[in-house]
Amino acid sequence: MASIDKVAKPKVLTTGNMNPRIRKAEYAVRGELAIKYEKLKVELEKGTPLPFKRVVGCNIGNPQALDQKPITFFRQVASLVEYPDLLNDKNAELTSKLYPSDAIERAKLLLKHIGSVGAYSHSQGIPWIREHVAKFISERDGYPADPSKIFLTQGASAGVQLTLQMIVEHPGVGIMIPIPQYPLYTATLAILHANPVPYYLDEAKDWGLTTEELERAYNEAAQQGIETRALVIINPGNPTGQCLKEENMRDIIHFCHKHRIILLADEVYQANIYHPEDHPFHSFKKVLKSMGPEYEGQELISYHSISKGMIGECGRRGGYFECEGLDPLIMDQIYKASSISLCPNVQGQIMVELMVNPPKQGDPSYAQYKKEYDDIYFSLIARAKKLEKLFSSLEGCTCNPAEGAMYLFPQIRLSKKAIEAAEKAGETPDQFYCMAMLEATGVCMVAGSGFGQVKGTAHFRSTFLPQPELFDEFCAAIQKFHEDFMNKYRD
Amino acid sequence: MASIDKVAKPKVLTTGNMNPRIRKAEYAVRGELAIKYEKLKVELEKGTPLPFKRVVGCNIGNPQALDQKPITFFRQVASLVEYPDLLNDKNAELTSKLYPSDAIERAKLLLKHIGSVGAYSHSQGIPWIREHVAKFISERDGYPADPSKIFLTQGASAGVQLTLQMIVEHPGVGIMIPIPQYPLYTATLAILHANPVPYYLDEAKDWGLTTEELERAYNEAAQQGIETRALVIINPGNPTGQCLKEENMRDIIHFCHKHRIILLADEVYQANIYHPEDHPFHSFKKVLKSMGPEYEGQELISYHSISKGMIGECGRRGGYFECEGLDPLIMDQIYKASSISLCPNVQGQIMVELMVNPPKQGDPSYAQYKKEYDDIYFSLIARAKKLEKLFSSLEGCTCNPAEGAMYLFPQIRLSKKAIEAAEKAGETPDQFYCMAMLEATGVCMVAGSGFGQVKGTAHFRSTFLPQPELFDEFCAAIQKFHEDFMNKYRD
Repeated sequence: MASIDKVAKPKVLTTGNMNPRIRKAEYAVRGELAIKYEKLKVELEKGTPLPFKRVVGCNIGNPQALDQKPITFFRQVASLVEYPDLLNDKNAELTSKLYPSDAIERAKLLLKHIGSVGAYSHSQGIPWIREHVAKFISERDGYPADPSKIFLTQGASAGVQLTLQMIVEHPGVGIMIPIPQYPLYTATLAILHANPVPYYLDEAKDWGLTTEELERAYNEAAQQGIETRALVIINPGNPTGQCLKEENMRDIIHFCHKHRIILLADEVYQANIYHPEDHPFHSFKKVLKSMGPEYEGQELISYHSISKGMIGECGRRGGYFECEGLDPLIMDQIYKASSISLCPNVQGQIMVELMVNPPKQGDPSYAQYKKEYDDIYFSLIARAKKLEKLFSSLEGCTCNPAEGAMYLFPQIRLSKKAIEAAEKAGETPDQFYCMAMLEATGVCMVAGSGFGQVKGTAHFRSTFLPQPELFDEFCAAIQKFHEDFMNKYRD
Repeated sequence: MASIDKVAKPKVLTTGNMNPRIRKAEYAVRGELAIKYEKLKVELEKGTPLPFKRVVGCNIGNPQALDQKPITFFRQVASLVEYPDLLNDKNAELTSKLYPSDAIERAKLLLKHIGSVGAYSHSQGIPWIREHVAKFISERDGYPADPSKIFLTQGASAGVQLTLQMIVEHPGVGIMIPIPQYPLYTATLAILHANPVPYYLDEAKDWGLTTEELERAYNEAAQQGIETRALVIINPGNPTGQCLKEENMRDIIHFCHKHRIILLADEVYQANIYHPEDHPFHSFKKVLKSMGPEYEGQELISYHSISKGMIGECGRRGGYFECEGLDPLIMDQIYKASSISLCPNVQGQIMVELMVNPPKQGDPSYAQYKKEYDDIYFSLIARAKKLEKLFSSLEGCTCNPAEGAMYLFPQIRLSKKAIEAAEKAGETPDQFYCMAMLEATGVCMVAGSGFGQVKGTAHFRSTFLPQPELFDEFCAAIQKFHEDFMNKYRD
C-alpha cells in the first residue's frame, strides 16, 4: 500500500485548469530572454567560462541596477526618516556632520505629517504629500490640481492595473492601446479579460500618430461588437521614445471626447525629454484644460512614477495618478479598491514627495542636487545619441532617435537564412536575434514581438542605460555580434 | 451654443457600468466607520469641539500608528542601506558613533547582495533574502524549505490576492473561508468572481473548528454545483484570535487531502502567541510534513508578513509566501504574474530579511533587540488581558480570550430598542453600536458584520494596540459609553 500511496497524485491546480487569463498573459520584458539572462548571471558568478566578462541588462529601464547613482538628497531624507533617533537632540551634532540641514528639516517635517514610515497610511496616500503632488502638477501645467483627485500608488504599474480594473465591466469592453506598446497593457488586459484595440504608431514618421489610424482602430473594433471605453497613450513613448506635439494631443483629446472614451495618459517619462526645444513635454491634463469649456468633464487619468526620470528609484515602487473629470462615485470606488491593499508603501510615497518637491535654489542641497540631476540628464542624452548612431550604422538596421524615455526601438531586416534558422529554433526572427546576442555578448534586449510591431517587421528594444565608462565597450560588443550574425546567416 | 456645451455630459464610467465585481467588494476594516474616523481626526486637528480629546484607531492592526516603537536594529539597517555614503571610509568614524557595528555589517552585506534599494530586484524577491527565509522556516519547523518555492510580496495581502487569482478558473470555483474572516478574503473573491464557501468557527468552543462543519460547508457547496478548490485558514485567527491545536490541524489537512483541496494558511500572526504553553503556534507546513508520505504532495501555500508580530512594519508592505507541493508549471505562472508588477518594494524585502534573521545572542545589538521585542510582547499580553476583562464585564457582552493575533471579537447582546433604532438608521445593530461608540469616544472599532457572524448575533472587533500609558483611559471611555448606550436603549 505504501508504494501506491507514494505515487504522486495529480495536482489540484495545473496549467490546464488554472485561471486561463493569467495563463494567457505575456510579459516579455521579464520573459524568456530575461530568465536566460538571470541564468547567465548566476553562471558567471560561479566562474563558468562564457564568451563575455559581464552581463548587461538592457531589457528593462532599471538605472540603478546599472550603477546610476541615486540623488543624494533624496536618499539622505529616506535614511533619516528610517531612524528617527538621528533627529534627537542627543544625536543632533553627529547627525549634522553626516546630513545637510535641509535634509534634516525635511525629514522632521515628513515625520510630523506621517508619524512613522512603519504605519499604514491613508489608503489614497498621505494627504500632505498629495497636496505637494497637486502643487507640482499645477505649477507644471498652469492649471489647478486637487489633492483629493490624486492617488499615490506602488509604481505607475499598480495605478494602471487598478484603474483598468475599474473600467472593464464585461468581456466586450475594448481598450485602445498603441502598437508598439509597453506589455503591462496587454498583460493587464489579458488578465482582466478585455479586448486590446490596437492602433499603430507610424515608424516612418518618428512613431507619430494620426487621427485616421485612431478612427480605423475604433471602427474596426466597433464592427466586431467591441465597446471601446478607454484609450491608452504613452507619452513620451515606450518602447518608441516619441514625444507628442501639442497639436497631435488636441486631436487625440478631440477623438476621445467625440467617441466618449476615457483617456489614460502614461506620462512616466515626462522628465526624460532629450530635445526640449523641438519636442517638449506637454501633459494631457494641460492640453485638455487649454481646450476650453467644450471639453470640460472629459475623463482623463494621468500616471507618473518615481522609477524613471533622473530619479530611477524603481525598486522602491512609488508613483501616483491624477483623476480628471471622473464621476465622484467612481472615485469612491477607486478608494475602496485601494483600501483592500491597505496603502502604498510609505517609503515609495516619501520618494514621490521628494520628486515633486526637490531642493530649491538657495537650499543648502540645491547645488549638489542640480549637478547630480544634470549629470544624469546630459549623460542619458549622450548615450541615447551614441547608441542610435550605432544602430543606424548596422547593416540592415534603421533607428529613430529617442525624443524621450529610456529606449531605442530599431528595426532590423534579417536575411532569409536567419529567418529560416529562427523558424527551425521555434522562435520569431527578432527573438532569435536577441537570444543570439545574449548568448554571444551577455547583453539582454527585448524582441519587438513582445511590444507588438507591424506584421513582417522585426525590432528590438534596448535601454541606453549601461554605465558611461563601459558604454563604448558595450557598443563594440553589439557591433561585433551583429557583423558576425549577419555574416553567418548571409543569403 | 456655449451654454449647451457647458452642460455636464453624463460620464463614460459610472457606478452603473463599472466593473460589477469591484462594486460588490466590501472591505469593512477601511469602510464607513474608518472613513468617519478619518473625518473626526481632521475635525479635531482643526480644533472643532468634540466630546473627546483624541481619536483612537482600533479598526486595524496598525501598531506604529499608535506609537509602538519600531525595533531599533531593523531601522538602523534600513537607514544605512538608504544612504550608502555612510558606509564609506570617509564617514566610518562618525557612522560608528551613530550605528552599532552589527547594523553596519548587515547593511554592507545587504548592499553587496542587492546593489541598490532603488533598483528593481528579481520579481520573486532577492535570492539571498529568500535563502534566509528558507532557513528561518526550516529552523522553525524542523523540515527543509526551498528558496525557489518562496515568493517575497508587498505584504501578505498581495500574496493572497496573487495566489487566489491563480486558482479561480471560472465563476463556479469555490474557496472555503472561515466565518468570521478577515475581509480581504471576501473582497478578493468578489473581485475574482469566485464563491466564498463559508465554514463557521464555534464561538462557544473558543472559536474552534470541527471537521463536521468543514464537511457540511463542502457538501452544501457541492450541492449547489460549486467546485471547491481551496480552503483558507487564518491561524492565529483574525478577528477571532484562536490558535489551532495540532490535532485539529491534522484533521484539516486530512480533509483537504481527501477532497483534493489546496490549503491556504494565513499565518501572519505566528509570533503573536499569548499562551505559548497551552496554545503554541504550529505551522501547517510542519504539521503536514509530520503526517508522512501519504500526504506528500498536498498543495499548501503559507503566508507571512512584516506587518504583525512585534515588528509591526505595516506601512512598509513586506511579506512572503511559501509554496508546498505545487505543480512546477504553476510556480512558473506565479513567477510570470509577479513579474507584471516588476518586484516587491526592496525596503519591504529588507524588513523580511531582518524579521527572519534578527540579531543573535552575542551580537552587539542582541540585548537591545531582545528587550524591545519582549517589552512589546509582554505589553501586548497585558493589554489583551485587560481589554478582555473589560469586555467580559460589560452588560450583555461576552468575550473569548485572545490566544494569539491582535484582536478581541466580543459578542454583544443588544436590546430590542437598540435594534429598532439601528433599523431606523438603516444600519445593522453592530454597525449602529460601533458608530455610536465612535461618535461618543473617538474610538474606531469594526462591526462584526464586516467579518461575518452567525445570523442574529452581533460582534465587534477591536485591536488592543492603544498606547500602554493611555490604555486605562481608553478602557474607561469604552466602559462609560457602553453604560450610557445600554441605558439609553434599555427595553
